[in-house]
Amino acid sequence: MRLLFLGDVVGRSGRDAVIAHMPTLRERLDPDLTVVNGENAAGGFGITVKIAEEFFAAGVDVVTLGNHSWDQKELVAAIDQQPRIIRPLNYPEGTPGRGFVLLQARGGRKVLVMNVMLRLFMDPMDDPFAAVDRVLRAHRLGPNGADAILVDVHGEATSEKMIMGHFCDGRASLVVGTHSHVPTADHVVMKGGTAYLTDAGMCGDYDSAIGMKKEVAMAKLIRKLPTERLSPAEGEGTVCGCYVETDDRTGLATSIQPVRLGGRLSQSMPVRG
Amino acid sequence: MRLLFLGDVVGRSGRDAVIAHMPTLRERLDPDLTVVNGENAAGGFGITVKIAEEFFAAGVDVVTLGNHSWDQKELVAAIDQQPRIIRPLNYPEGTPGRGFVLLQARGGRKVLVMNVMLRLFMDPMDDPFAAVDRVLRAHRLGPNGADAILVDVHGEATSEKMIMGHFCDGRASLVVGTHSHVPTADHVVMKGGTAYLTDAGMCGDYDSAIGMKKEVAMAKLIRKLPTERLSPAEGEGTVCGCYVETDDRTGLATSIQPVRLGGRLSQSMPVRG
Amino acid sequence: MRLLFLGDVVGRSGRDAVIAHMPTLRERLDPDLTVVNGENAAGGFGITVKIAEEFFAAGVDVVTLGNHSWDQKELVAAIDQQPRIIRPLNYPEGTPGRGFVLLQARGGRKVLVMNVMLRLFMDPMDDPFAAVDRVLRAHRLGPNGADAILVDVHGEATSEKMIMGHFCDGRASLVVGTHSHVPTADHVVMKGGTAYLTDAGMCGDYDSAIGMKKEVAMAKLIRKLPTERLSPAEGEGTVCGCYVETDDRTGLATSIQPVRLGGRLSQSMPVRG
Amino acid sequence: MRLLFLGDVVGRSGRDAVIAHMPTLRERLDPDLTVVNGENAAGGFGITVKIAEEFFAAGVDVVTLGNHSWDQKELVAAIDQQPRIIRPLNYPEGTPGRGFVLLQARGGRKVLVMNVMLRLFMDPMDDPFAAVDRVLRAHRLGPNGADAILVDVHGEATSEKMIMGHFCDGRASLVVGTHSHVPTADHVVMKGGTAYLTDAGMCGDYDSAIGMKKEVAMAKLIRKLPTERLSPAEGEGTVCGCYVETDDRTGLATSIQPVRLGGRLSQSMPVRG
Ligand SMILES: [Fe+2]
Ligand SMILES: [Fe+2]
Ligand SMILES: [Fe+2]
Ligand SMILES: [Fe+2]
Ligand SMILES: [Fe+2]
Ligand SMILES: [Fe+2]
Ligand SMILES: [Fe+2]
Ligand SMILES: [Fe+2]
Repeated sequence: MRLLFLGDVVGRSGRDAVIAHMPTLRERLDPDLTVVNGENAAGGFGITVKIAEEFFAAGVDVVTLGNHSWDQKELVAAIDQQPRIIRPLNYPEGTPGRGFVLLQARGGRKVLVMNVMLRLFMDPMDDPFAAVDRVLRAHRLGPNGADAILVDVHGEATSEKMIMGHFCDGRASLVVGTHSHVPTADHVVMKGGTAYLTDAGMCGDYDSAIGMKKEVAMAKLIRKLPTERLSPAEGEGTVCGCYVETDDRTGLATSIQPVRLGGRLSQSMPVRG
Repeated sequence: MRLLFLGDVVGRSGRDAVIAHMPTLRERLDPDLTVVNGENAAGGFGITVKIAEEFFAAGVDVVTLGNHSWDQKELVAAIDQQPRIIRPLNYPEGTPGRGFVLLQARGGRKVLVMNVMLRLFMDPMDDPFAAVDRVLRAHRLGPNGADAILVDVHGEATSEKMIMGHFCDGRASLVVGTHSHVPTADHVVMKGGTAYLTDAGMCGDYDSAIGMKKEVAMAKLIRKLPTERLSPAEGEGTVCGCYVETDDRTGLATSIQPVRLGGRLSQSMPVRG
Repeated sequence: MRLLFLGDVVGRSGRDAVIAHMPTLRERLDPDLTVVNGENAAGGFGITVKIAEEFFAAGVDVVTLGNHSWDQKELVAAIDQQPRIIRPLNYPEGTPGRGFVLLQARGGRKVLVMNVMLRLFMDPMDDPFAAVDRVLRAHRLGPNGADAILVDVHGEATSEKMIMGHFCDGRASLVVGTHSHVPTADHVVMKGGTAYLTDAGMCGDYDSAIGMKKEVAMAKLIRKLPTERLSPAEGEGTVCGCYVETDDRTGLATSIQPVRLGGRLSQSMPVRG
Repeated sequence: MRLLFLGDVVGRSGRDAVIAHMPTLRERLDPDLTVVNGENAAGGFGITVKIAEEFFAAGVDVVTLGNHSWDQKELVAAIDQQPRIIRPLNYPEGTPGRGFVLLQARGGRKVLVMNVMLRLFMDPMDDPFAAVDRVLRAHRLGPNGADAILVDVHGEATSEKMIMGHFCDGRASLVVGTHSHVPTADHVVMKGGTAYLTDAGMCGDYDSAIGMKKEVAMAKLIRKLPTERLSPAEGEGTVCGCYVETDDRTGLATSIQPVRLGGRLSQSMPVRG
């Protein structure tokens, strides 16, 4: 299978970049499944159903979230009607929405997409390892199980993300980090056959502070005085993420390649295997 | 000028990788200045003078440090005799060693190398922005000033690193992050002419938890029970960092390219301009 | 019933103070149940079975722990044979030991003692509120249930401790905080009838940094250079905690009074009602 | 001299309590200097000049602040005209206002009041120890210097507050903590003669989460979903703080006693020596 994952979409620049590059990505890579992290799509803070629908219309199959899941309050009430918008698995019991979704992809293949939040330097959550383990025990990769399993690991610390990668190695097709808003260059197929990337990077304007206007973020951090509210930078966005191909017999990855299109970063368009 | 920077060297795998790849890097890139972050070179914890001297013998000009500066206690007493080993600028007054060094590079050119520690999710330190600003006001880049200025920004949060990049834009040749131990793919020459990379990545074995044995790190994080002491992973290391070329008239960057050689990551050897 | 709770015992000064004052406390207050937090009893770091047995011999019924539970590694293997030493409830599944104990107190009365770890500014743990709720639903206070329920809330942030107090109000006899090593003066019977105290304070030498030698702690914090290992201060300790009386029909508290005996703090010996 | 210090005033309940109890406190204790921490006086978030003036009218001499200094933006512009409202010393250079004030108290006596912010589990600030040390070197306690020196230490961690106490021991009349909103019971005159209290406690309604409505705070912490904005609890407030007497020849403390008046906590009215 061919899997496309794009990192945190930040504001209008990020949304415009995703909408603009999806046709080329679909043409060149013909993904069986496309997942986008949308936690910052609405002005940097959360996402609305309307924006998610624009992503779906552009060919996105699943939207994942993170610590900004509920910044747009309407989503709290709406998410239960939106099986393809998933929030972190390890929120408290009783949280609306779900932490994973099982989809039918092209050709009747079954795909599982999961979203989990890590804990170092972040809001306290229940154990992400136990949560992921429960799902991976219930839904095994490979013959008679899922054809592909994709885990969006929303976290700050690189150590914890790498450990989650090893924890899932051999049991998922792709473990990819989000939240840092900077793409990492450590894409690798691990020894057990799981593709891994510490962070997908954001879809947004990189002449910024992780997608937000740099002048405001700088004043806030350095001067520690009240400023105007942080809002997304408005320059041309870069679409960032990764493209993974799997072995249809095992569901494990055969390759992972970075995606970086448009905007200010060095460009990387994957090549279909 | 041609500047080579390599990120946090972790243990023997990292040291072996640096020593093994330096000859090729020097032959291909002929750097005027080579800087290595050495804070994890001695078994993952700090550095000894003996190890620093091995780096110098291999062609490294300056060793930078970070939050692990004093893990090898001998360095506290030794650093004042080691002008080419620098520790973060913004340690408390009275801390041994210095936070920057002015060097003569080839052809009599003056180069300034600085090391600073950020604060989000890290040990409390004095304001890194004020500290860097003082040095950059005393040592200006360009005609009659420094021919190149390189800032090693040791920090956890991507936002704070990007803000430090913008803060120095136009005043330094290169702002490069360390500490996350994962190379980022956002190398860019910013609008003011400063080359920027959020993290250089480590020099070490990437089949690990940021360079340390993955089984031990995993047990510690997940089970929260006592484990054996963390020690560096022992597989083949990847040398990670970046290569920057500057305009001799301004000291500003004309290009920045990633370095990733050996080990498990995708390979990237810069091309001399 | 009469309940006595003493906070984190730190090192020899703390142990000596507990042993010295227990006879007077027992004579004056005649407690039906005595609980001591022992997480720092062994040189400031963890506890051994031998030390716990000294507490039991002095009249202590239950020893609670906290983030230092496993600092003495022998306890990991030993705790399953020690039902009266309890560790935080919300450690990961598979952790040795238990997070609560049901005891027979004098006159056949049933008492439940629980230990839980909070999360703000602390190591990531599973949701303490969900964990406490599960126990409180299984073991109800009052007729046909437990005659007394005591919750040791090991946490840093006062807000989170107060919220846990309200969360348990009406369902426990006493919610008392530990870990800050400083006694608070906010002992109160809340509206629902649960006695509450944000922190019991430590049993140890208060001419110190939370029980450890002040010179070493000061050097570590201010100079950020290697120091000798932290060890407990050796002056006379103060025994700190609280004394609660409950209504035998409901298990709820009728009064809570502070205990502060010996050492440097202002003295407070409760009066039996 | 006689010094009165009251901790963080939270919202209307806190303000009403201060205004209501100040006449009695002045009558009973006749303080030469009264200081109040006002960082939460305006609806829990910051303070306005109008509210500060109400405190001054009630007999307060100096208002101190903390991490909430600028929550009411008007204070940023106004503070330079308000020498008796002081903000933490160790904000970045260029921050409006001042970190200490030298006052004439009754009988021509000179009093220094200082406010400093600690760093553990708090916003990054410059070294509080270096900042306090600079002021204490410029303004010495005792003959030919200040008649009293009062330091409001705004911090979270009890260890760091105790260390600041020892750091100032013999050089200040009183070191008193704020920010935790819970009064501690460890008031003591340290070996060098400085009175010390880890936290003064808040002036506000204790049937709350550190002064804010408990239901909202509880929902926010436990459910991690959007809630209404936090606002102060509205029950009767307790005035909390301490009363210190000093030796006129040295400026050092001879006694320290807790103040707790009104509301739900156990009552403590100091006795004039
Ligand atoms: Fe995020
Ligand atoms: Fe994000
Ligand atoms: Fe490092
Ligand atoms: Fe580091
Ligand atoms: Fe403790
Ligand atoms: Fe503790
Ligand atoms: Fe505060
Ligand atoms: Fe406050």
